[in-house]
Amino acid sequence: QWMMLDWKPKRPDMLVDPFGLGRIVQDGMVFRQNFSIRSYEIGADQTASIETLMNHLQETALNHVKSAGLLGDGFGSTPEMSKKNLIWVVTKMQVLVDRYPTWGDVVQVDTWVDSSGKNGMRRDWLVRDCKTGDILTRASSLWVMMNKKTRRLAKIPDEVRVEIEQYFVDSPPVVDEDGRKLPKLDDSKAEYIRTGLTPRWSDLDVNQHVNNVKYIGWILESAPPPIVESHELAGMTLEYRKECNRDSVLQSLTTVLENGIGRLTDSGFIECQHLLRFEDGGEIVKGRTMWRPKFTKRIGGVGQLPAEST
Amino acid sequence: QWMMLDWKPKRPDMLVDPFGLGRIVQDGMVFRQNFSIRSYEIGADQTASIETLMNHLQETALNHVKSAGLLGDGFGSTPEMSKKNLIWVVTKMQVLVDRYPTWGDVVQVDTWVDSSGKNGMRRDWLVRDCKTGDILTRASSLWVMMNKKTRRLAKIPDEVRVEIEQYFVDSPPVVDEDGRKLPKLDDSKAEYIRTGLTPRWSDLDVNQHVNNVKYIGWILESAPPPIVESHELAGMTLEYRKECNRDSVLQSLTTVLENGIGRLTDSGFIECQHLLRFEDGGEIVKGRTMWRPKFTKRIGGVGQLPAEST
Repeated sequence: QWMMLDWKPKRPDMLVDPFGLGRIVQDGMVFRQNFSIRSYEIGADQTASIETLMNHLQETALNHVKSAGLLGDGFGSTPEMSKKNLIWVVTKMQVLVDRYPTWGDVVQVDTWVDSSGKNGMRRDWLVRDCKTGDILTRASSLWVMMNKKTRRLAKIPDEVRVEIEQYFVDSPPVVDEDGRKLPKLDDSKAEYIRTGLTPRWSDLDVNQHVNNVKYIGWILESAPPPIVESHELAGMTLEYRKECNRDSVLQSLTTVLENGIGRLTDSGFIECQHLLRFEDGGEIVKGRTMWRPKFTKRIGGVGQLPAEST
Repeated sequence: QWMMLDWKPKRPDMLVDPFGLGRIVQDGMVFRQNFSIRSYEIGADQTASIETLMNHLQETALNHVKSAGLLGDGFGSTPEMSKKNLIWVVTKMQVLVDRYPTWGDVVQVDTWVDSSGKNGMRRDWLVRDCKTGDILTRASSLWVMMNKKTRRLAKIPDEVRVEIEQYFVDSPPVVDEDGRKLPKLDDSKAEYIRTGLTPRWSDLDVNQHVNNVKYIGWILESAPPPIVESHELAGMTLEYRKECNRDSVLQSLTTVLENGIGRLTDSGFIECQHLLRFEDGGEIVKGRTMWRPKFTKRIGGVGQLPAEST
């Protein structure tokens, strides 16, 4: 159903955005930005890393808010939110990657928002190969508001709702919600543990907090090397619980799930469960990742991933 | 003298490079590429990090080689180099930063090469603010060839020289060489030491080695927090000695130099000396950094930096 967004390969499309800063398309409801993949955005596999991908999602989200004229003084906050000391925080992120682009590829990222329950917002992304139109990645995320001073979650005030609801696209999520509960992961269950992880200076964003994209790198730090070497990340679900800052010391825990993925075990898929926590035990991010063997020929694309119900 | 490169602000300039992949200018001798600074490329200061800047330099260097039709199967190697298992390794990098761009700014990076001694190559970069034409950064680097298999340095073979020397621009370096010897730095002298630093997966490049830009992050890890918080990096000289890989465990040492910068101490400049080494003592990178107080009004631009002799 997310096919509602037409894709037409058209070179003139590029020419209206010479600075690569993106623009609004689809009657003002969808924000679109192209990214050429740079040499430093690819890893040992010669493909863009998952962090790169997530960075592109973050960038389009912020530019969407900016180009809608809704950027207050915060990092993605609207003017009314800034007045009330409110910021957006992500609570859940689901990503399905069918193919990772490589150096020199140009990807086109579309993003839009919808409501989620009474006090939440959902933001979706669709990433395409600019040359072929193939869908490379789909992602869906849930956001709520937090008071910047008290660090407590807040309802969406009416003044903010008026600002943002005109941009809500009434459409189902591009990734079906993975509502499966993650079993509790602790030292007794985790097979792989990395301790003593600390933020670097460059991990901090303008809010002096560790940017949520950085958490992914730490989560992958405890993924078993044999899996990381032989498999590629095909999808993940992350639930964000707490924020961390410059002085935090973190632990990353991973366990490989035995029968978590049903029929797909035959095709060599592996599913892992993750926990990123403070040394004193507080949970920062809980997650689930899905891995497919590298160099597997992908038939049928992202539709084969288990989180897809069709 | 590096002013030989004209700069004219011209918007049509952008339109000939809609994908932002850069192109050759100046009679084929200079490669030019624009970068819009993205939200994830800025740090807690709201400005682009030094790593971002270095990434842009790396990207233009590689695209320069690529667009000259000289990209072999390696990461910046020419076809003749690939045949002979040769790769480029950087031995020295000098960078002077007058101003860091912020989110949404567009910078224009020019790069070109010249010979350096009998068996080396010098690559220079000039980074400008696209809107104003102001020079933001100048950088100069020295490169030699290494045999990929034996990991030993090699002379430039005649076949490779023929490929590359047609691109040599006969011009003095944009940054005067900082030939000052760095005094030996060890545990007894270093005031700040960070131990147990290990590469993350995402630090590896396509050669399965830690990319040299990543070393900068580690070096800054041992810079004293009060300096990092109150000052910004105005310049640095790095000498690369050894490569490291996924399994290396590193130590970062820093000492603040007392009288290293003469008259500039009055203006609040601070100079530091750094060493990145293996736990067993082998030197990876030696470096010198120069810091200026944040929010200082910069009069006269980069010309005031001590490494500039004019």
